[in-house]
Parts: sequence; structure tokens; C-alpha cells
Amino acid sequence: MEINGCPGFKFAGVAAGIKKSGDKDLGIIFSEVPASVAGVFTTNRIQAAPVLLDKERIRSGMGQAVIVNSGNANCCNGEQGMQDALTMSGRAASGLNLSEQMVLVASTGVIGQPLPIEKIEGAIADLINALHPDGLPDFAEAIMTTDTVPKIVERKGELDDKVFTVTGVAKGSGMIRPDMATLLCFVMTDVAASPAFLQDALRTAAERSFNRITIDGDTSTNDTALLMANGLSQIKLDNAHRIEAFQTILDDVLLELAKRLVKDGEGATKLIEIIIKGALSDRDARQIADTVAHSNLLKTAFFGEDANWGRILAAAGRAGVPLEADCIDVYFDDVQMVKNGLGCGQEAEAQATQVLKKSEFRVTVDLKRGKGNASVFTCDFSIDYVKINADYRS
Amino acid sequence: MEINGCPGFKFAGVAAGIKKSGDKDLGIIFSEVPASVAGVFTTNRIQAAPVLLDKERIRSGMGQAVIVNSGNANCCNGEQGMQDALTMSGRAASGLNLSEQMVLVASTGVIGQPLPIEKIEGAIADLINALHPDGLPDFAEAIMTTDTVPKIVERKGELDDKVFTVTGVAKGSGMIRPDMATLLCFVMTDVAASPAFLQDALRTAAERSFNRITIDGDTSTNDTALLMANGLSQIKLDNAHRIEAFQTILDDVLLELAKRLVKDGEGATKLIEIIIKGALSDRDARQIADTVAHSNLLKTAFFGEDANWGRILAAAGRAGVPLEADCIDVYFDDVQMVKNGLGCGQEAEAQATQVLKKSEFRVTVDLKRGKGNASVFTCDFSIDYVKINADYRS
Repeated sequence: MEINGCPGFKFAGVAAGIKKSGDKDLGIIFSEVPASVAGVFTTNRIQAAPVLLDKERIRSGMGQAVIVNSGNANCCNGEQGMQDALTMSGRAASGLNLSEQMVLVASTGVIGQPLPIEKIEGAIADLINALHPDGLPDFAEAIMTTDTVPKIVERKGELDDKVFTVTGVAKGSGMIRPDMATLLCFVMTDVAASPAFLQDALRTAAERSFNRITIDGDTSTNDTALLMANGLSQIKLDNAHRIEAFQTILDDVLLELAKRLVKDGEGATKLIEIIIKGALSDRDARQIADTVAHSNLLKTAFFGEDANWGRILAAAGRAGVPLEADCIDVYFDDVQMVKNGLGCGQEAEAQATQVLKKSEFRVTVDLKRGKGNASVFTCDFSIDYVKINADYRS
Repeated sequence: MEINGCPGFKFAGVAAGIKKSGDKDLGIIFSEVPASVAGVFTTNRIQAAPVLLDKERIRSGMGQAVIVNSGNANCCNGEQGMQDALTMSGRAASGLNLSEQMVLVASTGVIGQPLPIEKIEGAIADLINALHPDGLPDFAEAIMTTDTVPKIVERKGELDDKVFTVTGVAKGSGMIRPDMATLLCFVMTDVAASPAFLQDALRTAAERSFNRITIDGDTSTNDTALLMANGLSQIKLDNAHRIEAFQTILDDVLLELAKRLVKDGEGATKLIEIIIKGALSDRDARQIADTVAHSNLLKTAFFGEDANWGRILAAAGRAGVPLEADCIDVYFDDVQMVKNGLGCGQEAEAQATQVLKKSEFRVTVDLKRGKGNASVFTCDFSIDYVKINADYRS
């Protein structure tokens, strides 16, 4: 789908020299008018300076710019880290003629190394000069770390003959676990909505998307998802119908971004939806889905395109939820591999192996005990994951 | 240390043709006299047929033989699986002239494939003929799956001028997580003790050893640890002093076996002890130790010999325990890497990198908040782990 950017927002991304590679590493989003803002953040007890700063600033419910660097997480840097985050937002505010309170900050990259703030200060003028409605691809590139592709999703909705836009951009490839918004994500829209409403809508959409994905089971210290609404479409979200229409589009944007994150997971070659059906409750189903989706043994078997369904049952069995092995059915896409806890034989296995060769497929586990359902997205676990993370700081 | 085998026990291991490789895959332990027995088993809700059978049989508190196969877990095989486990123990009982109730069974290998019971039946006569006090190395080999080395540990203790022996043999290389006895382990001793006492002693020792190790965070469906005491040393564990002396030796044998399991973890190149100090409680410390020990990101950094301490703090931060980042110290062996949440600079990093090149080292995280301590053992996460598990069934 074509990406035109959300009306009223400008973007830029430049290379400030933070990444050794010389790739773009500093980005900015600017709203031409003050916007309502909402945010969800990492649940990690160790939180990066920009996360602490943003949590404070979004209390006002208003914001007009976000400055983001990659290549350095500005985390575990003590007081200097907070000082650097303040300098980063301060310089952006000066350049944009905004109050400092209207500028949010995000960082992503290596933990525990001082932010090269002088490089950021040196690049801010160029960054602001580059702001342009078509600058989103540059911004998307500037926030990438081990991501191999930029991730931008845009959807339009219609209400009362007016069109509104939701544009999302995200990064995230490792340290991804379903535990709040596990990544950086920035969403721009031109609806008019209160900060409180936006906060609800963002939390709901994150629950339905980012909190349903896992790459490696680790949780970042820097996760941040921000939603900015500038009201330029003149659509007010003031009744249930409009709220629902907006939520549907927002959910769609975030879910699509979430799936792209998993597909581009570190070393990932496959996107797998784990569907648990027939549990006693949705909560039980989710617990099993998470445990299966996190199993290193299963994820390596997926990489090897080995239909090793025993590992699915073994993972389900350690989820801490009562199970009856002889009730369980397992499907790979529509191929039944396991019926009542027993393998369906060589022909089924041969068909399942074909499913595993695909780059996207579903694994459905039917417990046949109740009506609880859940679905999460995971990726395979490859040799490249190990290579990427063994040498990450080199 | 020399391994002589525990007095009164004989062992054997042969190749029955279950493993495609033609390696030994069927083993037996025989006690010349009826022995008190105790067992701890997997907490996975999916349990293999031999686990279900043993849990039933050890209720009598007595046993005289254990027959074990590798290459097939006899798990998720329905009624046929239980039938096969019964046949396996029945044939062994006939050959040894024992009541079937006195024979325990264990299996390890691929889940969800029918046990080739005719191969086991065909090999039982040879297996029993091979029983010998020096047969423990053959047995140890016969229970290996992805293990690269057999694991046997023997310790002697002295009480009232009499010597007693504790001999342990274990296998386990993947699906290892601190959640009951995550592996197969058989311990023989010649003390005299009631089954109830043995059960306590084994549970305690397992808690201090096997429940403190992780390789990949997955829990097997077949975990079994059995302890057999034949009383031949004429040492009765009938007072606190003797009980303590025995527990010390038993703990030592199991901890040494546990460490060897981690060292031989699938693809592992390093054995790492994660020590958490200064938590508010031992429980908090353990929760953090487990989370750090399971972090794929940290384990891959260890493989890459990268002193990436940020990942230690990030993992600690997601353990669900309150933390104050600016209190935390981190050491690699005796090299301090982090002081009050901040990196100690390039010289410390250079020294820490030397520590990481070792095949065994400690990571100590001091939270400086209380007196809670914990320590667990983990290994690094290598390219070979992925290779081993991507191709396991091929």
C-alpha cells in the first residue's frame, strides 16, 4: 500500500556518526500543530533515560516532536544519561522553536555506553533542515539497529465523508517479548482526540499486536510506543462508532507492524502464528501460546524445517496449565499432525514438512477442553541469531 | 577420581539398534539385593510412559533393577507406549528372575515415535549376560543422546570406621531447565536407609543441584532421577550426624553431575555460575538468577566472549523483582565491570574479556539491598546449539 505520510507531520533522518557503519542514526518527527500524545513503555525495571523522561513529559498529554537516535540505548548511564537526554530534546526544541516540554526522546542500541551527545548536537541543524512530509523513509532508516528493513504501515479510514490517516513506523529485531510495547514505535494520526482517549486506544492496540509477538524472549530497557494525534482531519472521536472505526484502523496498523518486526527478527527466516484453541480460559490459552512461542527447541526445529511436534507438546506441558495429552490435536496450517495426542503418521509428516518450508505458516494446538483461545506470533531461531548476538558490540 | 562402582550393583550397556548410529542405546542397573528406592520426576504435564510407570512403582519403596533406553523417549505414544514400557520391564524382570514390580524403566530421545520394542526384546538376553560390577561406563554410554561425554561421579564417605559409596550416573544435554530433576540420573549407594528418608535426601540434593542448572530453558517430558540404597555397607542412617554425612556426599555427587551436564550442554563451550547477592530475599535472588541464566541474548554474548554487561542488567530488570539500577555492581570472576549501575571503563572491560575466554567463570551481580542470595549454573548459546536442534531428528 502506498505511503503518503500523515497530513501535518514532517520527518527526517540523517547520519550523525553514532553508528560505526556510517548509516543514518538520528531521526525526528515534527507535528505542525501541537498534538495530543499517548505512550506505552517497557515494563523492564531497568529503564533508559529517554523512557524516564518521556513518561514524565507525556503526563501533559501534549507534544509536538520526537527525536530518536539508534546505535546507543542511553541506558545505564546514570545522571549523565538523563543530562544527555535533556540536551537532545533541548537542542531539538531550540531548532524547532518549541518549548522543551513538547519534545519527546527515544534511543535504541547498545546499553551502558555513554551517548555521544556532541555528535547529536552537531547533526541537529542538518536534521531539522531536512524535515519534510516525504521524510518518513529516512526516519524509518535512522531508527534501525539490527533490523534489515525499515517498517512503515499506513492505513486510511473514512468517517462522515472525511478521511483520516494512521501512519506507523517501528523498529525492533531483538530483545522482543510480549510484555508491553517491546520496541520503538511511533504512530501519527490526524484525528482529534483527547490524550486520555489516545492512551486507551494505544494500550488496547498494543495489547492486540506488540504484546502478542516474541522473537527471543528478552525485554528491552528502551521500549517506547508513542501515538500523536493532530486533529487536522477535523474528525472528532466523540462517539462509539467513530471510536471503534479509529480503533480498528489503529489495531490494523500496529498488528501489521508487529508482524513485520517478527518477520525481520534477528536471524529469522519464518513468521509463525501459534494458535491455542480449546483451553479452559483465554488466560490458560495465552500462557501455553507464550511458552510454545518461546521454546528454543521448537524454534530451532522450525529453522531446520523439522515437523518435530513432540517439542510442541513438551513446551505446552511445561506452561503450568493442566493438560490432557490424549485430547490434544496439532495442525500445521491445515495439515493435522497429531490426533488425540498421537502422531498422524508419515504421510501427514511429509505434508507438514512442506508447510514448514513456507516463510509464513500457522501452528494450531487444539486442547479440546473448553473455549479459551489465544494467538501469538513468533519466528524461527537460526544460526544467524547467534552470530548477530555473539558479535553485536564488535 | 577413580570410579569403582558402588558395592552390590552391576551394570551393562549394549547396542540394540534403536539409535540410527549403531551406538549403545540400552542399559541396565541391577542390585544384587532388594534396595530402598526414591525418585523425583519431571514436572511437565506431558509425561512419558516410563515416568508414569515409575511413579506408580516407587510407591512400594523397593526396587532391584532399572532398564533404560536412549534414542526414543516413549512419550506421546498413548496406550501402546505404556504397553511397551510394561513389556520392557517385564522382559528384564524375567531375565533377572525378579518380580516385575521391582524393575523400573526410563527412556530418553525423540518424542512421539513408537518405541521399537522388538529391538529391545531382542537385545535383553545379551544385556543381562553383560551385567558386571565394572559395566558402569557401558551403561553411561547407553543412556546418552546428544551428550558428547558420559557422566559418572563417585564419592566415598566414612562413618564409624565403615566406608560408604555414592555413585551417580546421568545424561542430559538439552531440554534442561531448573524445574525438578531435568534429566536422567541414577544414583546407587550402599547405605541402609528407609525409602522415606531416601526420598527426602534425593529431593534435597536435586534442589541443590539439578534444580540450579539451565541449558536451554525447556523441560523434558522424561526427567527421572532415581536413588537406590542396598544397605551392604551396614551403615544405617539412623541419627542426625550420619544423615548429614550422607547428605553432604549425595549433594556433592549430584552437584558435580549437574555441572557436567551444563558443561556438556548442547553446543555449550562454557560453564558459567550466575551468582546474585544482596537481594531482599533468597527467592528474589533466585528469580533474578534464573532470568539472567535463561537470557538468550546474554548466552549468545558469552559465546561471542563479549563482556556485554548491559544484557545482564536488562535481564535482571525483567525478572519481576524490584531493582535499583544505581545500586548494582557486576563482577566477572573478580573483575568489577559495573559499579553502582555504571560501567567501570575500558580497562575493566579488557580484563573481563580475558575472563570470558575461560571455559568456566562466575558472574556475580550484587544488588546491595538485602541478604538474599542465589546461584545457578548456565552455559553459553552457540551456533552448534542451533545446528544440533535444527537437525535433531534427521
